[in-house]
Amino acid sequence: MTADKFSALFNARSVALVGASKDGRKWGFVTLKHLVDGGFGGRIYPVNPSENEILGLKVYKSIDDLPETPDMAVIVVPPPAVPAVIKQCVGKGIKAGIIITAGFAELGGKGVRIQQEIAETARAGGMVFVGPNCNGVMSPWNKQYVQFPSFFVPPGPIAVVAQSGNVMDSLARQVMMYGQGCSVCVASGNEASLHIEDYLEYLADDPHTRVILSYVEGFKDGGRFIEVASKVSKKKPIIVVKAGKTQAGARAAASHTASIAGSDVIFDAVCKQSGIIRAASLDELINIGLGLLRQPLPKGRGLGIVTAGGGWGVLAADACAALGFDVVKLPDDTIEELDKLLPAWWNRGNPVDLVAGVAGDNIFKAIELVMQVPSVDSMMFLSIMPALKVRGFDAPQEPVAREKWGEEITAAVIEAFERLNGIADKYHKPLVVASEHMWSTAVEQAKIGYTLGQHNAVCYHMPHEAATVLDAMVKYNDYLREKAH
Amino acid sequence: MTADKFSALFNARSVALVGASKDGRKWGFVTLKHLVDGGFGGRIYPVNPSENEILGLKVYKSIDDLPETPDMAVIVVPPPAVPAVIKQCVGKGIKAGIIITAGFAELGGKGVRIQQEIAETARAGGMVFVGPNCNGVMSPWNKQYVQFPSFFVPPGPIAVVAQSGNVMDSLARQVMMYGQGCSVCVASGNEASLHIEDYLEYLADDPHTRVILSYVEGFKDGGRFIEVASKVSKKKPIIVVKAGKTQAGARAAASHTASIAGSDVIFDAVCKQSGIIRAASLDELINIGLGLLRQPLPKGRGLGIVTAGGGWGVLAADACAALGFDVVKLPDDTIEELDKLLPAWWNRGNPVDLVAGVAGDNIFKAIELVMQVPSVDSMMFLSIMPALKVRGFDAPQEPVAREKWGEEITAAVIEAFERLNGIADKYHKPLVVASEHMWSTAVEQAKIGYTLGQHNAVCYHMPHEAATVLDAMVKYNDYLREKAH
Repeated sequence: MTADKFSALFNARSVALVGASKDGRKWGFVTLKHLVDGGFGGRIYPVNPSENEILGLKVYKSIDDLPETPDMAVIVVPPPAVPAVIKQCVGKGIKAGIIITAGFAELGGKGVRIQQEIAETARAGGMVFVGPNCNGVMSPWNKQYVQFPSFFVPPGPIAVVAQSGNVMDSLARQVMMYGQGCSVCVASGNEASLHIEDYLEYLADDPHTRVILSYVEGFKDGGRFIEVASKVSKKKPIIVVKAGKTQAGARAAASHTASIAGSDVIFDAVCKQSGIIRAASLDELINIGLGLLRQPLPKGRGLGIVTAGGGWGVLAADACAALGFDVVKLPDDTIEELDKLLPAWWNRGNPVDLVAGVAGDNIFKAIELVMQVPSVDSMMFLSIMPALKVRGFDAPQEPVAREKWGEEITAAVIEAFERLNGIADKYHKPLVVASEHMWSTAVEQAKIGYTLGQHNAVCYHMPHEAATVLDAMVKYNDYLREKAH
Repeated sequence: MTADKFSALFNARSVALVGASKDGRKWGFVTLKHLVDGGFGGRIYPVNPSENEILGLKVYKSIDDLPETPDMAVIVVPPPAVPAVIKQCVGKGIKAGIIITAGFAELGGKGVRIQQEIAETARAGGMVFVGPNCNGVMSPWNKQYVQFPSFFVPPGPIAVVAQSGNVMDSLARQVMMYGQGCSVCVASGNEASLHIEDYLEYLADDPHTRVILSYVEGFKDGGRFIEVASKVSKKKPIIVVKAGKTQAGARAAASHTASIAGSDVIFDAVCKQSGIIRAASLDELINIGLGLLRQPLPKGRGLGIVTAGGGWGVLAADACAALGFDVVKLPDDTIEELDKLLPAWWNRGNPVDLVAGVAGDNIFKAIELVMQVPSVDSMMFLSIMPALKVRGFDAPQEPVAREKWGEEITAAVIEAFERLNGIADKYHKPLVVASEHMWSTAVEQAKIGYTLGQHNAVCYHMPHEAATVLDAMVKYNDYLREKAH
C-alpha cells in the first residue's frame, strides 16, 4: 500500500460526498453535516443528481462534474448504485474512498459477488477504500470527521481500528471522556479493499500515533496480518479485543461484517507471536491503551503495592498474584525506613497499608521507598484521597461553595498524579493508580477523569483494572526484549 | 442474636461517642460531625474527660456521667483505653457498640489477647459490638451515619456488609452514584463480637433490605456462616466478593482484619451450597445487586439479544455463550414478523441486529417479538440510542441549549427504560440493557446513570457486564427452585 493513498484517506484536502441528502434522517445528510461541523478545512463536494445546494454547499450532479479530482470520496448511495459510483471514481482518478453503504458480503449470496466486483474495479483502477458496511473514519488532526454521531474526538495519540462502527464510536468516545484524543479512528467494515493490517502498517509510521487499539472479528489475510503486526508491535503497542470467541459470537460476526472468526486458541498464539496485547473487553482495551501512553515499561513481575485502604490492598494483591505477579517481600531496611513514616501498628508487609491518619508527603515518601527496592519492577498505589493537598475533606453543601470545592479537589488530584508520575519517571518503573474519589459526586468524578487525561494521567476505577494494565505492560516489554535479541 | 441489640445498633435513639474530639483531623471529631451532619434525630452524647462542648453539643466526662443509658456507643479512643471503655459501657447497661479503634488482632501477639478480653467483657455483659478496626456503620433510614467520608448515602433497598471500611465506602458511594440507596452499611472489621453471619441473619428480616452485597476476607465461624447464608438466600439474594484468593491476597487479608482466607475452591462450594452469588469484583457486585433489585428471574439459559450496534451484538453473544447461555435460534414465524419491522437486509439471526435506520416503536416491537419466543428465558438489549424519542441527535454546542438538550436526552432515556421494564414485567422475563450514551458528555452520562437509578432502572456500561448479571440471575433462580422442592 503506498503512503499517498493513505494520505488521501486521512489527510484529504478535498472530499466528494456521493449520495449527499437534504433529509436530516439520512446518512447522506448527517455525514455531510458532521464533516462541516467538525471544521474540515478542505474543499467539500456534495454529489446528488437531484439537488442544487445542501447546507450552503453547491451540489454536483455527478462525480464527472466535479471541478477537480478530489483526494477522497465518501459513498453513501444505496447498495445497487455502488458499483457504478466506484467506476466513476476510478474514471475521475480518485485514489481513496469510504463506502458507508451496507448490504454486501455480510448478507451472503449476491452481496458477496457485488462486493467482489466493487473491489476488483477499485483495485484495477488504483483506488483503495474503507468498507463497505462501515460508519466512517475520523482523522482529528485533519479535522476530518466522516461519521454518524455528533461528537468530535480531539486530536491525540490513540489510534482506533475497529471491525465495527459502533465499537469504533464507543472507543473514541471513551478516549474523549478520559480527556485524551485520537490520531485516527477507522471503522473498517467488510474490508473488501483495505484490511486491518493495512491500517496497522500505515499507523506504524504515523507520527501522531503512539498506541493502537483494535477490535477484530476476523481476518481476510491471516498470514499477512501476523507479518505486519509483528513488525508494527516493535514500534508501538497494538492492543486487540478479538470477538467471535464462541460459536454464538462467531455466527454473529459472520452476519455482521462477513468475518470468519477462526479459532480462539490460534488467535492467542498469533498474539504471542506478533507481540499483540490481547484485551478481554473494550474497557480493558482503553485501560491498557491509556496506561501504555504514559508509563515506563516494567522489567519483570516484582510488584510493590501501597494502599490507603486495607480492602483494596487485599483485592489488588489477589488480582496481581492471579496474573503471575510476585508481590515481593520488602527488605528489612525498607521496613525500617517505613517505620519512620508510618504509625507503630502498620502491617509491615506488602501491600503497605498506610493506615488511617497517614497523609501528604509521607505517602509519597513511602511510595518512593518501595520504588527503591531492587526486586520491585512496578508499583500500584491505591486510594489517593489522603495524598491530596486540600484544606479538609468536609464537602460544603451550598452549591457555589461546592463547585469551588470540586475544582480544588480536581486541582489536588492533578498535583498528586504529577508527583506520582514524576516518581515513576525517576525510577523508570511504572506506577499505576486505582482509586475511588470518595469526596466527589458522580459529576465531579467525571470531571476529574477528564482533567487527568488532559494532563496525560489516568486513574483506574478498580484495583483489578490496574492489575490488568501492569500485566499488559510486562507482556509488551517481554516481546520487545525478546525481539531485540 | 436478639433483635433488640440490632435495633439498638441500627435504629438507635441515643448514641454516646466515646473519644469525641475538637481536633478536625481526628476520627473523634469527624465521626461526631458526620453523625450531626447526617441529620441524626436522636440524642448524641460526646464523651471526653477534657472537653466541655464540641460542635455545640455538651460533652460528658465519662460514660457514667451520661443522663441515660444510650442505645449505642461509638468508641474512638486509643487502643489501650478500649478495654476500660467496654467495661464502662457494660456497667452502664449499653447493649451495642461500634469500636472504630484499630490495633488489635490484626497486629497479632498482644493485640489478639486484648481483643479477646474486650470480646469476653462485652459477651459477659450482654453487649454486642461492630469491629474493632472498622470505620463505621451507616443506617440511612434512621439518618444515623457513623462514618469517615462526608457523603450520606440515601435510604434504599441495598444492604452492604464488608470486612473492610474502604470497600464499604466504595460500595455505598457506587450505590449512590447509580441513583440508588442503602438500607444498612456495615464495616465489620475484626469481628471480635458480631460476625458477618450475624448481620446476614438480621438483614434477612429487615423490611428495608432487598439485596445484600458483601465483601469477605475470611470467616470466624464457617459452619454457622453456611447455615445462616443458606437460610437467608431463600429470602433475599446475597452477593459476595471473596478476597484472599491467592497467597499474596490471603497474607494481606491476615494483616488487614486478622482474617484467615481459607481455600478458594472450598468457598466456591460454600457459595453453591448456600445460594450465595459470587462476584469477581466490586463492580460486578454492584452490577448484580442493581439487576436483582428490579428484574424478574429467568427460568433458564435461553437468551435473545437485540442490538442497535453490530459489534456490541457480537461481544454480547460471546460473553453470554462463554457463561453457558444458549443464544437461541429464532423460530421462522418470529423471523417473518421481524421482517415486517426491519429493512430487507437485516441479518435474520440472534443477535437481532437492528441495522442503522430502525428506530422508535419498531425497536420495542422487535424486542417484544423476541420476548414471545418460548425458548427465550431472558433478553439483552444493546445500544439504546435509536430507541430514544428525541427531536434529533445533533447536540447543540451553545451551553444553555446544550444543557436543555442533556435534560431532554435524560428524559428520553428514562422513558425508554420504563417501556423496556414494562416489557420485562409483561413477560416475566428479565431484560437487561447495556449501552453507550453516544450523544452525551461524561458529565451528562453521570447524570443519566444517576437518574436511571432514581427510576429503579440500570443501564450497564458494557455487554459483558450485562451478561454477568443475567448469569447471576439464572444461578439464583436455580437455587430458589432447588430449595423449593
